[in-house]
Order: sequence, then structure tokens, then C-alpha cells
Amino acid sequence: MKDVDYMSVIEDSINKIKEGAFLTVKSGNALNTMTIGWATFGVVWSKPIMMVAVRSSRHTFGIIEAAKDFTVTVPAGDMHKETAYCGSKSGRNVDKFKMCNLETTDSRQVASPIIKTRGRHYECKIIYKSAMDPAHLDKDYDSSLYPKKDYHTLYFGEILACYETD
Amino acid sequence: MKDVDYMSVIEDSINKIKEGAFLTVKSGNALNTMTIGWATFGVVWSKPIMMVAVRSSRHTFGIIEAAKDFTVTVPAGDMHKETAYCGSKSGRNVDKFKMCNLETTDSRQVASPIIKTRGRHYECKIIYKSAMDPAHLDKDYDSSLYPKKDYHTLYFGEILACYETD
Repeated sequence: MKDVDYMSVIEDSINKIKEGAFLTVKSGNALNTMTIGWATFGVVWSKPIMMVAVRSSRHTFGIIEAAKDFTVTVPAGDMHKETAYCGSKSGRNVDKFKMCNLETTDSRQVASPIIKTRGRHYECKIIYKSAMDPAHLDKDYDSSLYPKKDYHTLYFGEILACYETD
Repeated sequence: MKDVDYMSVIEDSINKIKEGAFLTVKSGNALNTMTIGWATFGVVWSKPIMMVAVRSSRHTFGIIEAAKDFTVTVPAGDMHKETAYCGSKSGRNVDKFKMCNLETTDSRQVASPIIKTRGRHYECKIIYKSAMDPAHLDKDYDSSLYPKKDYHTLYFGEILACYETD
């Protein structure tokens, strides 16, 4: 395990997240992972921040709404099969970990575990969240991205740890 | 003027914005610039996004609330004097452009101009905005950053242009 300066890997992470990364959340006994393709990185509230978005229709939504933290695992190898599965199936109906042969490993600083795979891992504490208000969204984006009106909630995580595993 | 791939300069821009950058907004005849120290970059709604934050107490707030776009100018040279002034004085009371000898130049794609200085410039169309709800903010951050309860509104700008000037 090698600690990484989160600033130095932003470009690489965004490019890889576009191809699919794992957002993993645990609250109490509830645990799920889902695929994300969007994220932003930077500084807000004078803290290193990673922002992720979860639609209200997602099984993960119910878990992250009750959670204090989340992790993001950016695979180093080809995991397109797994991210496609975890992005299209719901944790309500299937055990994604079992179906994709994914295991989790305890995080260092947060309750949500990371996915046990070669790659880069972010441990984030949720310090702010905001349910999207369609009244303030560009109309073109509203109609194209939200035909079912299942808007995203934006989760702003303070990056407590960023590291890579082999 | 040289176009730049916004992805390749995220780390550099965040580091420089921490030292102070100019957020410039024009709506109708109203124009102002203010200093920002925070920003995030990435992909949301499948678009290249830069997020900036403006407190409700700011003169710029009234302008950006009515605006369709904003620009960010990240100075290449030492402009600490100018960013300190534009971050502490209000456009309600002073003409920041005159006092700091700052000029603007027309943008290529948006109504808000850029600051005419050597540096990197972002032209952003506001596609979503969200006024912060303190109910969803970590209590420690609420008390330390918002003693006056003048919360930020978060502006998500689609990056339409990113370029550097000498």
C-alpha cells in the first residue's frame, strides 16, 4: 500500500473514473457498491474534496443517506465487466460482491470499506450533501439526463486518505 | 492565446487558485470580479465542470445569481496585491478594476469577460447552482466557516473554453 498525494493523481483518476469506478458505502449493517462515472476534485471549505453523485432511485442512496462516509476505488486493471454489472444491477435484488467475485477490505479511517483490487482508493468523510433541485438545473440537462426525475444527490467528501494497492 | 486541455492543468490550477484567482461575472450592465481560493474540477452530467462558491453577502452574488456564466482567471505572475484587494473590498463601495489597474477582455463564448493578465482563463456556462443548506453541513464547518451565516452558493459551470495568455 502506497500513500499518494491526491492532487497529483486528479487527472488520472478522472480519466479512469469515466471508464467506471466503485463507490462503496456502509452504514450499520447495510453495505453496497455501485459504479460511478462522474466525480470532481479540488478544494472547498479549505479541505481536499471529492464530490460524487448518487441518484435517488439507487439502492446505494438509502445507505449513503444514513452513512458518515464513502470510499471510491479506481481500478488499475480492466474491470469493465464488474463495473458494468455493478452499474446496471441493484443491490436490492442481487449480491453484487458475490456475483462479481468482489471482496472488501477494511478502510483505514472510515467505516465504509474499499474494494479489494489493484488500484487507487479514496476514503472520504461526508461533510456536506445537497439533493439536486431541478429548478436550478439547465433545462436541456433536465430532459436528457433525468427523464425519470430521479435526481442526483451530491456528496462532498473530505479526502482523509488516498493510496494505491498492488 | 493558447488553448489548453482543462484536464491536464487541474492540479496546477487548484494550487494556484489556493493563492488567489479572479472570478469575474457580468450580467446586463453589472460587472464585478472577486477573489476565490476554492474550486473543484471534474466531470458531472457527462460534461467538464468547474465548481466555484460565492457567499450570499458578496456583491458578486447578486450579479452571478442573474448571470448565465462566469469566468475564472488564474494569474501566472504574482498578483497577490490585487487578489488581496479584490478579496477584501466590495464592488458595492469601490471600483476594483480602477483601484487595481485591472482591465477586462471580451470572452470567446460567454458574456462575462476575463481579466486581462498573463495566465489561464476558464469560460464557464452555469448549468446548475445550489444554495448551501446548513442542515446538511458538518457542524464543525458550520461554526468555523459561517459565523455570520452567509452561506455559499455553489455554481457548477460547464467549461466551454480553457486557454492561456502571455
